[in-house]
Amino acid sequence: MAKSDFRIKALKLHKKLKGKIEISLKAPIFSPEDLNLLYTPGVGAAASHLAKHPEDLSEMTIKNNTILIVSDGSAVLGLGDIGPEGALPVMEGKAMIFKQFAGINAFPMVLATQDPDEIVKTVRYLSPAFGGINLEDISAPRCFDIERQLIDSLDIPVMHDDQHGTAIVVFAGLINALKASRQKLQKSKIVILGAGAAGYAVAKMLKKAGVQEILVIDRKGIIAPSRQDLNFYKKELAQMTNPKNTKGELKDALRGANVIIGVSGPDLIKYEHIKLMIENPIVFALANPIPEIMPQEAKRGGACIIATGRSDFPNQINNALAFPGVFRGALDNKVKKITDQMKIKAAYAIASMIKNPTSGNIIPSIFNKKLVATVAKSIQ
Amino acid sequence: MAKSDFRIKALKLHKKLKGKIEISLKAPIFSPEDLNLLYTPGVGAAASHLAKHPEDLSEMTIKNNTILIVSDGSAVLGLGDIGPEGALPVMEGKAMIFKQFAGINAFPMVLATQDPDEIVKTVRYLSPAFGGINLEDISAPRCFDIERQLIDSLDIPVMHDDQHGTAIVVFAGLINALKASRQKLQKSKIVILGAGAAGYAVAKMLKKAGVQEILVIDRKGIIAPSRQDLNFYKKELAQMTNPKNTKGELKDALRGANVIIGVSGPDLIKYEHIKLMIENPIVFALANPIPEIMPQEAKRGGACIIATGRSDFPNQINNALAFPGVFRGALDNKVKKITDQMKIKAAYAIASMIKNPTSGNIIPSIFNKKLVATVAKSIQ
Repeated sequence: MAKSDFRIKALKLHKKLKGKIEISLKAPIFSPEDLNLLYTPGVGAAASHLAKHPEDLSEMTIKNNTILIVSDGSAVLGLGDIGPEGALPVMEGKAMIFKQFAGINAFPMVLATQDPDEIVKTVRYLSPAFGGINLEDISAPRCFDIERQLIDSLDIPVMHDDQHGTAIVVFAGLINALKASRQKLQKSKIVILGAGAAGYAVAKMLKKAGVQEILVIDRKGIIAPSRQDLNFYKKELAQMTNPKNTKGELKDALRGANVIIGVSGPDLIKYEHIKLMIENPIVFALANPIPEIMPQEAKRGGACIIATGRSDFPNQINNALAFPGVFRGALDNKVKKITDQMKIKAAYAIASMIKNPTSGNIIPSIFNKKLVATVAKSIQ
Repeated sequence: MAKSDFRIKALKLHKKLKGKIEISLKAPIFSPEDLNLLYTPGVGAAASHLAKHPEDLSEMTIKNNTILIVSDGSAVLGLGDIGPEGALPVMEGKAMIFKQFAGINAFPMVLATQDPDEIVKTVRYLSPAFGGINLEDISAPRCFDIERQLIDSLDIPVMHDDQHGTAIVVFAGLINALKASRQKLQKSKIVILGAGAAGYAVAKMLKKAGVQEILVIDRKGIIAPSRQDLNFYKKELAQMTNPKNTKGELKDALRGANVIIGVSGPDLIKYEHIKLMIENPIVFALANPIPEIMPQEAKRGGACIIATGRSDFPNQINNALAFPGVFRGALDNKVKKITDQMKIKAAYAIASMIKNPTSGNIIPSIFNKKLVATVAKSIQ
């Protein structure tokens, strides 16, 4: 289908549905007695019990299996800061995936504020009814501070999916790409292009997982301790990844690297860049919808394994492989914080679903029926 | 069923259900193409359109048919300030009624704050995704100011149901009670016991509907302009209802009254009080679960028509008769503010469903299949 036809079809479907999710009753109200038990006066028994025993909320209410999806619309898909109205259909789509693949009731909430303190306060106020919080499409570096404050102040799991969902699936794909090309994680030299939400989280996860050599590149070049223009989070990245204070641009970083992970923007990697890497390098070009480098170009540069964020090429790195199972596990196992170790385990769990990885098959399909349960087991 | 058996049965049902509502997909995701159209990349077409045309939100998203139910748990049922945890099962019950009777998707949100300014801000931040706001179980006088600020600042309908839902149904019942007993609204002298959310709204509606003589009683007696202990809203009531500055207590107010409406607490009206009224008075004793006076006592005092909030006596005055239809009408007719005239029309619409009112039959059943559509027509 041509791109414009596809857009028209998607728009038409959204206009036809007028909302992609709805509320259903878990028990219908057929009679006055149903109403008396589920609403007044019967609900008074549950209400007064829960007022005294809020710890029982998950035993009697939606908190049991309900996630809040929160976005301020500041960094939506490849579209950028399109505000809460633009973000709403995306969050509804996310809620569909939560339900269809993990049986989780997720409600999309788009906020008419982009002030980090107000977002934190709002989510705190909303938290009692929810079993977990999925932060979504909030721009960096605001997202780091918002997530940190919420994790510290709430006793339910909080995850910014653009960071950790991405990091889990990138790492899962990388495990299998290295396996397929007989390379070692610990001996890898990995360049991450992009230091936003995804780049930051991918770098931290790879470091925790044992990668020794990582360099992260932002618009101004390699992130290095001597740079004076770094915010708090980029300083952290510089210290963590680049103690030798390597300076330069993308091409300087790529020399001797076996993996490049693009989480930046369209067309930022050229085939000449790939040529600077070691033989048979691994290229993850994950910008959506237009990758940092198209697969055929990466191949021309010598790449042996290529992954993108798109469904029309092999090896689609898609957050939807991780977040339904992560929250399914967190809810089922009553996990209050999703730790780094759990995320690493989740990545290995996803990777383990491909028994014999090859260059064209490093990552399972979201339609794989065992996926969510496999991921969920690692979150405990 | 004994009261304690009923409570146990209700608790068991809540424990079994673990949440009374859930999320459903309006279109299932069977294939990668479904996913591509409803999530990325297809949703990008809807997202970028809506970012430019937020006025089309109701054409393509849940805003079309979704209401936010908001409570801070400060005045729940007859239980008082039980906080967000206690309020949650009640709000879930409300969401069930919205769906079952009016086909509206309502999401319950219980807030971990009782600060009026924070509640107003939070609801404003949440408003983009919703077609209307149902405020619920927020204590007086905070509820008046919260509702006013939200009505003034949002372009979607906002209704505090404890005020206006109650007032609509009380007035509907009163229309038919007066008809059944051949009394006139304009010539009535009506005493309202209770000056909280419901008392305030009932008094204002009766005044707008043409009642000349109204007195409102709070814990300290008749609300009169000369009293020095009145807050802003009670001063407004005093000026509106009692320009002659009648002073005294309940018994002083009742002399010559043909209607008493109790929206206060248990056992506050005695049969001797009823005896002070004119012959064959109308008694609405609406405190829940224990009315201001039990029906047999009111009858002993001479009452000819008695209504309560309970389902186990005739003439149940229940908000659920109004709010589903009010919001159905507001959504269908794209109403931005629910006016006093609309509420009065809604009350007449509910009353009109009983063709020949009698002392034991002044109000329709919530299970009447024509109810919601009849009420909805009046909200435009």
